[in-house]
Amino acid sequence: MDTTAHPRAPGGASLCQLIRRTVQLRPHATATQFGDRQSTWAGLQDRIARLAGWLHELGVEEGDRVAILALNSDRYFEYYFAVSWAGAVFVPINTRLAPAEMVYWLNDSESSVLFVDEALLPSFRAAESQLETVRTKVFLGDGAPPDGFLPYEDLVAHDPIPASRRQGNDLAGIFYTGGTTGRSKGVMLSHRGLTLNPLQAQSVVQFKPADVLLHAAPMFHIADGFLCMASAMHGVKSVILPGFEPTLVLRAVEKDGITQTLLVPTMIGMVVNHPEVEKYDLSGLQRVLYGASPMPEGVIVRAMEVMPSAEFVQAYGQTETSPILTILESEYHVTSGPKAGRLRSAGRALPGVEMSIQDPAGNEVPRGTVGEVCARGDNIMIGYWKLPELTAETFRGGWLHTGDGGYMDEDGFVFIVDRVKDMIITGGENVYSAEVENAVYLHPAVAECAVIGIPHDAWGEQVHAIVRRKPGSSITEQELIEHCHGLIAGFKCPRSVTFSEDPLPLSGAGKILKSELRKPYWQDQTRSVH
Amino acid sequence: MDTTAHPRAPGGASLCQLIRRTVQLRPHATATQFGDRQSTWAGLQDRIARLAGWLHELGVEEGDRVAILALNSDRYFEYYFAVSWAGAVFVPINTRLAPAEMVYWLNDSESSVLFVDEALLPSFRAAESQLETVRTKVFLGDGAPPDGFLPYEDLVAHDPIPASRRQGNDLAGIFYTGGTTGRSKGVMLSHRGLTLNPLQAQSVVQFKPADVLLHAAPMFHIADGFLCMASAMHGVKSVILPGFEPTLVLRAVEKDGITQTLLVPTMIGMVVNHPEVEKYDLSGLQRVLYGASPMPEGVIVRAMEVMPSAEFVQAYGQTETSPILTILESEYHVTSGPKAGRLRSAGRALPGVEMSIQDPAGNEVPRGTVGEVCARGDNIMIGYWKLPELTAETFRGGWLHTGDGGYMDEDGFVFIVDRVKDMIITGGENVYSAEVENAVYLHPAVAECAVIGIPHDAWGEQVHAIVRRKPGSSITEQELIEHCHGLIAGFKCPRSVTFSEDPLPLSGAGKILKSELRKPYWQDQTRSVH
Repeated sequence: MDTTAHPRAPGGASLCQLIRRTVQLRPHATATQFGDRQSTWAGLQDRIARLAGWLHELGVEEGDRVAILALNSDRYFEYYFAVSWAGAVFVPINTRLAPAEMVYWLNDSESSVLFVDEALLPSFRAAESQLETVRTKVFLGDGAPPDGFLPYEDLVAHDPIPASRRQGNDLAGIFYTGGTTGRSKGVMLSHRGLTLNPLQAQSVVQFKPADVLLHAAPMFHIADGFLCMASAMHGVKSVILPGFEPTLVLRAVEKDGITQTLLVPTMIGMVVNHPEVEKYDLSGLQRVLYGASPMPEGVIVRAMEVMPSAEFVQAYGQTETSPILTILESEYHVTSGPKAGRLRSAGRALPGVEMSIQDPAGNEVPRGTVGEVCARGDNIMIGYWKLPELTAETFRGGWLHTGDGGYMDEDGFVFIVDRVKDMIITGGENVYSAEVENAVYLHPAVAECAVIGIPHDAWGEQVHAIVRRKPGSSITEQELIEHCHGLIAGFKCPRSVTFSEDPLPLSGAGKILKSELRKPYWQDQTRSVH
Repeated sequence: MDTTAHPRAPGGASLCQLIRRTVQLRPHATATQFGDRQSTWAGLQDRIARLAGWLHELGVEEGDRVAILALNSDRYFEYYFAVSWAGAVFVPINTRLAPAEMVYWLNDSESSVLFVDEALLPSFRAAESQLETVRTKVFLGDGAPPDGFLPYEDLVAHDPIPASRRQGNDLAGIFYTGGTTGRSKGVMLSHRGLTLNPLQAQSVVQFKPADVLLHAAPMFHIADGFLCMASAMHGVKSVILPGFEPTLVLRAVEKDGITQTLLVPTMIGMVVNHPEVEKYDLSGLQRVLYGASPMPEGVIVRAMEVMPSAEFVQAYGQTETSPILTILESEYHVTSGPKAGRLRSAGRALPGVEMSIQDPAGNEVPRGTVGEVCARGDNIMIGYWKLPELTAETFRGGWLHTGDGGYMDEDGFVFIVDRVKDMIITGGENVYSAEVENAVYLHPAVAECAVIGIPHDAWGEQVHAIVRRKPGSSITEQELIEHCHGLIAGFKCPRSVTFSEDPLPLSGAGKILKSELRKPYWQDQTRSVH
């Protein structure tokens, strides 16, 4: 008896559906604001449908990849939905990559069209000669396009087309993350996962039509991607800043009536410790969603002083989970009383998400016992792009293995205690130690190397390398850091290096014992939560 | 390039996931209360896992159908989740069916196990001899089981088993609805659809752990099924009444601290017009979700008087949509002011749902123009059980065709103006005219017949038959009603019959012109919204 989905089953979870529904309900409400530019939802849909039509004329077909390398803007917002409207796949590029990494992302994804703005033009030029698949370049800026680029506003000259029917488990976008093996990997996210996650988060993070969202975190990150989906789903106005800058954030909150935003704790710290913070009226801010690392106690105490109307909500997840798995509600952002002690927790599973802490054999461990944090849910990625074996490994036993070590308490709160994948989080950016170590090892003077995160007041962690030089070598800290800058993004490069005369300590299995190396730096600090 | 879901992709949207997550978060909170019986979520999960183990021992395999014929109880709640835990498919049976209909549902679904409670035992006995597939019967009551039945509490003697991995688009349950062709059809609902709909509704209908839900509407209906899913998803206590009775509802709201419930307008009318309503403290009631028909103005005015703390929210949908498509928020339940005029609307599409009013060719009609109400979303059914052609027809063009006629206004509010499928809604029950007409026609004295809904103060509509007798026949109204009672459920039988000496009016296409027949009854009433 056939009970599988009917071939014509009217599913339809898609980015296009979000836009079309919102245009049905509130066509004349403001969708995006960027500087002096504003667009209504009806106007936005028209532009999206025209840009999609243009992409088709440029030869973009169903499932083709279309990349973007740009700072935040209203056009970045349009890009996400127009690429979906055309049935193509978006590939947002981190703006801080080294040329070699950018080349890898673009070539690996086989992107045929690339959008570049003025600010990123120099980065693009440094990588241009090695690109193998990009055949059309569109200039996102306002002035005359550089040689070889088409001007973005040409889109208005093209006819709008009906939205693609891609939906559900169809590939919507590829977000690259650093790789444990020293190589970036493309996370394939589906239309369902991206549009489901804001619904799953709704039990804690609601959006009302009267809200105004501030996009200050980079739009190439899945975290801000979540905010774009929520904005389109609920017809909420998005105010977009080119990038994070504390003064711009403070000004926008006051002048543009921002009610909700998404930041990382480092950014929150910079905002609340801004010397002129008291001059701004921040009373309209109702919620700050933050992620990537837990909130230092000093920051939350200060934040509650200067933003008394705002609630703080921590989201934990990763690109592979579209992105939120667990949320720590505002009521647990306290340092005393019966709900204290959870500020270091990553919170609890969203509805529709299931969390499980597992031992290496795939068995659930008892509460309070550390194991690998695993998850299930319709928000989990399709898999890694062109890496079926890594995908199978990550999905073993029917669970996504996050690579994070952690435990769960008796009330379901998840505490992250270590990154199984050995990742450093610095200023909200993920840096995989292996990737940095690979770069360090490329220097002929290096005999042995371990990269770890050490405490940093503003960034949470700082990338630090411990190196044993080859006999006879006298390479300096500065030279080694310079060497890395030629190979990987600046934020991934070690900020400090110490040299060891002895071989690095090894575990029984012959792996470098990073826990030993970290000890002296973390003695009086906690690294129990990221 | 393969971008389809990995075979081991950790999806997991399922009824079991709802239970497991809630047990992780709040194991000791109360799950269900029925009379003097209470269960915690951890206790409930244990019983569910044992009942599932028992079902396996009884030979129930993956995808097998397990039916239930019972009034509401905590065991009904357990049943939904235990059947899912066993990997089987639930088939809830309407308690008011005529024996022939019950036989059809059980045989058509090929149910192998049937749960029956004491109250429905006589109905079961009347149908028993014609059942072809039921091989195990379980008695839901508390006393000694009747001959041939196993006692329900035997479940505790069986070992708990791990939950089935059925999930996502896998079939979870079959809910039968009346058929336009005079035959019931089984609506196949998926794990994803059933667990997604409460998430989609969350932007309007939130559930908090402190809520207490009252199940007074029948649990065999998908509407209360929604409440069961929401209860399990958010770990909210369910207080369950055997069935709807105004005094029991009033008493429960006062004594059990009910904060939310789900009713049909007919029931709300009976509660708010209860002679002793003023004696009860109803101040804890925060929300009444209602569906199946719009709220008569008189009822909403009275309801706001006696339940001033409660907000009223209308949900529109059908079994095929798991079940909610659109919601009319409480703020539109007003008869004056700028938001008036929407009380007759079915509301607007939920996030994740897309509505479209289409002409017969499948084109969207302009706003304000009547067409067929169509919908898309991951909450749409898998299809009709064993009816692939009807499924394809209902899904034509990639849209679910609801069978309802309606229009959409400029702000996305949907107004239902007619049932394309010619359905009567009486006291919240759907009655398909064709099904009743088939029964009437089976009487040898009937030459011609049309069944319509006519206004009824308490029930919204009443089933009314207009009959032309064969020459020489003198059958009476009473005889014809009696005749129907032997064939179809009591609530579907005509309550009144008028006889016509002339042939019934026909359309150009030769169909009986029901609009003409309805006119005299509805002249001073509105039938513009159901």
